Amino acid sequence: MAGTAQIGVTGLAVMGRNLARNFARHGYTVALHNRTASRTRELVEQFGDEGTFVPAETAEEFVAALERPRRLVIMVKAGGPTDAVIDEFAPLLEPGDMIVDGGNAHFADTRRREAALRERGLHFVGTGVSGGEEGALNGPSIMPGGSVESYASLGPMLETIAAKADDGSPCCTHIGADGAGHFVKMVHNGIEYADMQLIAEAYDLLRHGAGYEPARIAEVFRGWNAGRLDSYLIEITAEVLAHVDAATGKPFVDVVLDQAEQKGTGRWTVQIALDLGVPVSGIAEAVFARSLSGHADLRAVGRGLAGPTPSPLPADEAERFAAQVEEALYASKVVSYTQGFHQLQAAGAEYSWTLDLGAIAGIWRGGCIIRAAFLDRITAAYAKDAALPSLLADEQFAGELGAAQDAWRNVVATATRLGIPVPGFATALSYYDALRAPRLPAALTQGQRDFFGAHTYHRTDRDGVFHTLWSEGRDEEQQS
Amino acid sequence: MAGTAQIGVTGLAVMGRNLARNFARHGYTVALHNRTASRTRELVEQFGDEGTFVPAETAEEFVAALERPRRLVIMVKAGGPTDAVIDEFAPLLEPGDMIVDGGNAHFADTRRREAALRERGLHFVGTGVSGGEEGALNGPSIMPGGSVESYASLGPMLETIAAKADDGSPCCTHIGADGAGHFVKMVHNGIEYADMQLIAEAYDLLRHGAGYEPARIAEVFRGWNAGRLDSYLIEITAEVLAHVDAATGKPFVDVVLDQAEQKGTGRWTVQIALDLGVPVSGIAEAVFARSLSGHADLRAVGRGLAGPTPSPLPADEAERFAAQVEEALYASKVVSYTQGFHQLQAAGAEYSWTLDLGAIAGIWRGGCIIRAAFLDRITAAYAKDAALPSLLADEQFAGELGAAQDAWRNVVATATRLGIPVPGFATALSYYDALRAPRLPAALTQGQRDFFGAHTYHRTDRDGVFHTLWSEGRDEEQQS
Repeated sequence: MAGTAQIGVTGLAVMGRNLARNFARHGYTVALHNRTASRTRELVEQFGDEGTFVPAETAEEFVAALERPRRLVIMVKAGGPTDAVIDEFAPLLEPGDMIVDGGNAHFADTRRREAALRERGLHFVGTGVSGGEEGALNGPSIMPGGSVESYASLGPMLETIAAKADDGSPCCTHIGADGAGHFVKMVHNGIEYADMQLIAEAYDLLRHGAGYEPARIAEVFRGWNAGRLDSYLIEITAEVLAHVDAATGKPFVDVVLDQAEQKGTGRWTVQIALDLGVPVSGIAEAVFARSLSGHADLRAVGRGLAGPTPSPLPADEAERFAAQVEEALYASKVVSYTQGFHQLQAAGAEYSWTLDLGAIAGIWRGGCIIRAAFLDRITAAYAKDAALPSLLADEQFAGELGAAQDAWRNVVATATRLGIPVPGFATALSYYDALRAPRLPAALTQGQRDFFGAHTYHRTDRDGVFHTLWSEGRDEEQQS
Repeated sequence: MAGTAQIGVTGLAVMGRNLARNFARHGYTVALHNRTASRTRELVEQFGDEGTFVPAETAEEFVAALERPRRLVIMVKAGGPTDAVIDEFAPLLEPGDMIVDGGNAHFADTRRREAALRERGLHFVGTGVSGGEEGALNGPSIMPGGSVESYASLGPMLETIAAKADDGSPCCTHIGADGAGHFVKMVHNGIEYADMQLIAEAYDLLRHGAGYEPARIAEVFRGWNAGRLDSYLIEITAEVLAHVDAATGKPFVDVVLDQAEQKGTGRWTVQIALDLGVPVSGIAEAVFARSLSGHADLRAVGRGLAGPTPSPLPADEAERFAAQVEEALYASKVVSYTQGFHQLQAAGAEYSWTLDLGAIAGIWRGGCIIRAAFLDRITAAYAKDAALPSLLADEQFAGELGAAQDAWRNVVATATRLGIPVPGFATALSYYDALRAPRLPAALTQGQRDFFGAHTYHRTDRDGVFHTLWSEGRDEEQQS
């Protein structure tokens, strides 16, 4: 006999618990299961009045509590634990049932699991869930992969509990087959790394270039948040910078150890971009900047290296400079998103996913860390041209970067002179200039490769593959 | 009955053939084997007078031709073909025999194979061989991993056929256990990518910044090759730039399509550095620059973007600028090697390899693509202090970078203003400046992470792990 619960959640740590409560608050009957049953009981005791919960002690009870086809959400640690839970539940399920993995799985694992479960007639829906504990409870951005059929059944429920964008549309859409959802969530996180690095550089420039104190920089960020940079990350930057440490009376940012940690999705994004042949230098520099910050031993050595001591600009120049930093930040941010969306596009081609890039930008407008007014512009760009080869091919973005580039160049040049590291700003500008270049020195690189390794080259003036006999008279051979 | 051949080579494509000839020319009796026997016969027909070869048609004959313990070199494609050949020969071997893999294996595959063969009493020696066809024949740089015992038997033969540095020492040393040899070869290639990218940027700056023609730039590189940049890559840059295309009468570099290709080891280097938490931004930018150059569609779009058209500097300034480019190139190169050697050091710790970093620099002085006078300086730095935490901790390197930094900053700032992409120079300088920084804006990043994800932070003024209750009064909690 089938149960009555429309959805079940197994794994009731904070993310699973909050997702379960979110479903219940929206009127769904939610089956609950956890390896340690006490946690299930606690949830019901504490939050039982928020909706209808069906607690289950065993896997069998849990599965029996669900209506058919079953919708079973697993919220456990990525990797081995996810496989263990799948192995536990899959034998209890029937064809047509759905397993949703809402954890932070690597998309390659999701592809593997989806293929294995599909053979058994089960739907496996690897789903990115963004927004942390708060989002899980009050509305996350949800990125489900898996089959179209599974989305027909799950989609309405996920859209109901998802965050809503300012225009009321749910921050959830069907991303694409198998691992597409987890892939998109990964790139979302990679872009988040880049955004945070650019903000950190902007702060550093205002601090040591413009010579502003944190409280004043908080004001600058508040101002930016009223403009085109309007976003959650800019908003909380102002909050963090305005905060004063109670123990010392110093700015909070000055008492925090300057070592930024990371959990792995930024790294994955770069590793997979390398496999796809997509330059994501902004995300890479962000990941490297975090690693570097943590190498205390290297930094102890490096502090002895010679260089300028930044002396802040005079007051009137400082104000002009601060405005230029906004332009550089905006332009660099557009480049980061350009690179991230290039990676999505390349992954779509590689894995045969039909990704709606505009819709993906759309569901990041609420619930997640990179939510920003700016994302509407990306949606609009793809709405105008779904086959846009690059965000920089969009007239509006191209125009904005063209308008920003003088300021952008001045900020990077000034940072370079003052000795303030700006790996994110600089690599974004290099990407922009490399794309602009009529000719790249890659011609020399390929010529060298032909010289030392007979790797051949193409010519600009006719088709074919050529090799120069470098050590025997330097005649050119056409090889094909 | 054991055979008489001291070494055998199976896989007689050009690399295997040349290695076999190299052994024979040095007086070793060399057993030969190839899947297609005609190739074995061809080798003997063409080069039989160079030494003593024992051709074998079957795997059994080949193994029987070798003296005990057997030394069997496989020179086949990395991946599946290597596994297939191992599976074919391993059952025919006896405890104590050695299989040398001289292909471009991923070090993780080498670790797996070494462990599996060790269980069967066989030595598996994953060996980096650098220098291409030419090096294989006349003296490559050889980087063998595997057991100390195997090196006692193989080392003298490998050292005999290896390139010799200017001081006569062989470009071969025992690198370390299991996959250490292939790992070091991989990082060698990653550094080669970075070197080539920096040279490409230097060329671009001389062309579009100083306004020099390729023939003149060839002269500049020739001059540099007489100084501290003395190296194979600088030497061949001059050759490539001086070369005139016979068909058009134009500089060769202007008729080569400006898309640089790659084969994968640069990408692997970056992917593994990310896993090890080592910033190798110079190598990453080099890999990305090659990828970007190949995206013809993106570049077609990008050429429309607004930016300055570089107008070459006046003649006297140009000469000063060219000298500054040498300083920037040298400084950026030191940073690339610093990052690469950091990766080696981190890998040694991760995989329990005792890597002699000075000796590794030493065996790159001959036979391989990155051979350079400069490597002596790295060997010297580690000779002074084997536990050097970073090449930048060496007084001499630190002093040189300190002396170069004004020029370096001017070159990056000028390129930025002129719109010439310099991702390699810029990231190297950012790395230098980030290491110098008394405080990094990573403090803000970590503060944000605590704000949106309760990821906690450390304080500068006392031990412990802290979290601020951002949405509830902003009190600070000590968590441990």
